[in-house]
Amino acid sequence: MDLREMESEYTSRKGKKVLIVYAQQEPMSFNGSLKKVAVEELSKQGCTVTVSDLYTMNFEPRATRNDITGALSNPEIFRYGIETYEAYKKEALTSDILEEQRKVQEADLVIFQFPLYWFSVPAILKGWMDRVLCQGFAFDIPGFYDSGFLKVCALEGKLALLSLTTGGTAEMYTKSGVSGDFRYFLWPIQHGTLHFCGFKVLAPQISFGLDDSSEEERKVMLASWAQRLKTIWKEEPIDCTPPWYFQE
Amino acid sequence: MDLREMESEYTSRKGKKVLIVYAQQEPMSFNGSLKKVAVEELSKQGCTVTVSDLYTMNFEPRATRNDITGALSNPEIFRYGIETYEAYKKEALTSDILEEQRKVQEADLVIFQFPLYWFSVPAILKGWMDRVLCQGFAFDIPGFYDSGFLKVCALEGKLALLSLTTGGTAEMYTKSGVSGDFRYFLWPIQHGTLHFCGFKVLAPQISFGLDDSSEEERKVMLASWAQRLKTIWKEEPIDCTPPWYFQE
Repeated sequence: MDLREMESEYTSRKGKKVLIVYAQQEPMSFNGSLKKVAVEELSKQGCTVTVSDLYTMNFEPRATRNDITGALSNPEIFRYGIETYEAYKKEALTSDILEEQRKVQEADLVIFQFPLYWFSVPAILKGWMDRVLCQGFAFDIPGFYDSGFLKVCALEGKLALLSLTTGGTAEMYTKSGVSGDFRYFLWPIQHGTLHFCGFKVLAPQISFGLDDSSEEERKVMLASWAQRLKTIWKEEPIDCTPPWYFQE
Repeated sequence: MDLREMESEYTSRKGKKVLIVYAQQEPMSFNGSLKKVAVEELSKQGCTVTVSDLYTMNFEPRATRNDITGALSNPEIFRYGIETYEAYKKEALTSDILEEQRKVQEADLVIFQFPLYWFSVPAILKGWMDRVLCQGFAFDIPGFYDSGFLKVCALEGKLALLSLTTGGTAEMYTKSGVSGDFRYFLWPIQHGTLHFCGFKVLAPQISFGLDDSSEEERKVMLASWAQRLKTIWKEEPIDCTPPWYFQE
């Protein structure tokens, strides 16, 4: 690439905003290192990086009446989805939800960094999804999947990327392995949640087999994540439809 | 069936213990009604029914250091999975986890009653799974899937059943529908969690399309749940392997 190209690429990255939603208790963990590497690499590129460190924030995962300030639209029967939809429109959601929605709204790319718990995200991160991605903000009915609200403009969705670690090995997460293809467990999160809200989904970054990995193997995984991030803005999103998950 | 058969069946059900793990905020909701119907029907059969009403209990979903009483085995770097495994063996888990483990241990059947949130369980229920089903109690390595610990005896697993409600219609949750076959989103919960722990999984009870259902349609769904529960102890578990989820 010549100097002019380099300049133009630097400029295009420079204004980018990245939100990392991070769900690990221990800063010295491998998830902590993956998060650190991402902050460093993306900052070096000139991106603005924000981290929502859910455990440090003691983020509330429970979806309750406390998420709505002031009166309910139906005080007789509490319906979480309806009340938060109404509260969103009236700007009556509780402040921790508003703050996360603001971060999502500003981000060009949202990276979710977490250890796989039961083929899914840890409860604290599930609570972030349940509470932050409410109707009115992230989608409407109609207004979901390719019409979901989390887009930068009519053509381009915000980007989302799952960076996760597993205890089990890569072999366990294959079609013939005991835990099935890893794409199977990505479906509810990537398609049912992120795509539903209009995100374009980048390929997941999976660091497999942490339970038995050597120091050397971990270094390789960290380096490959850092390397990937160097060209992350050039990546094409996956085709987030059933064939990607179930037929390849 | 003749009188002797009826007697023997009554006796076989009579001693059965059922745990309902219930994750809905509002008692007057449809989930509340499904839970009520199950308690009534199973009690009428002579079963002992226990309900863990997670929102009323304000159940803690976050997996943190607070789950271990006393000293950590490694105070330098906190690893949740390892620390809870050690704490389980030393009987040093916090009391709310122990209480739920005791209920699971005693149950012949565990029913999970919840509204589908983002193709999965609400965070409060995810937290129950993350915290209660810890290594040592629910599985070990090795000691998972068909060798998972939650069995009644060497041959027979405890039974588990997901009873859930969706906003979207049944048509949306088909292979050609926008949200894909409903079996796709069941994989992480039924296979990756319940089967992993040794449960035998009964077919799910899905009440679809609540967003637009009439009073009459809801009555039919409630009645069909009550009807199914009458013969629940005769049901064969599903074959919890990839073909059930992805190839039918």
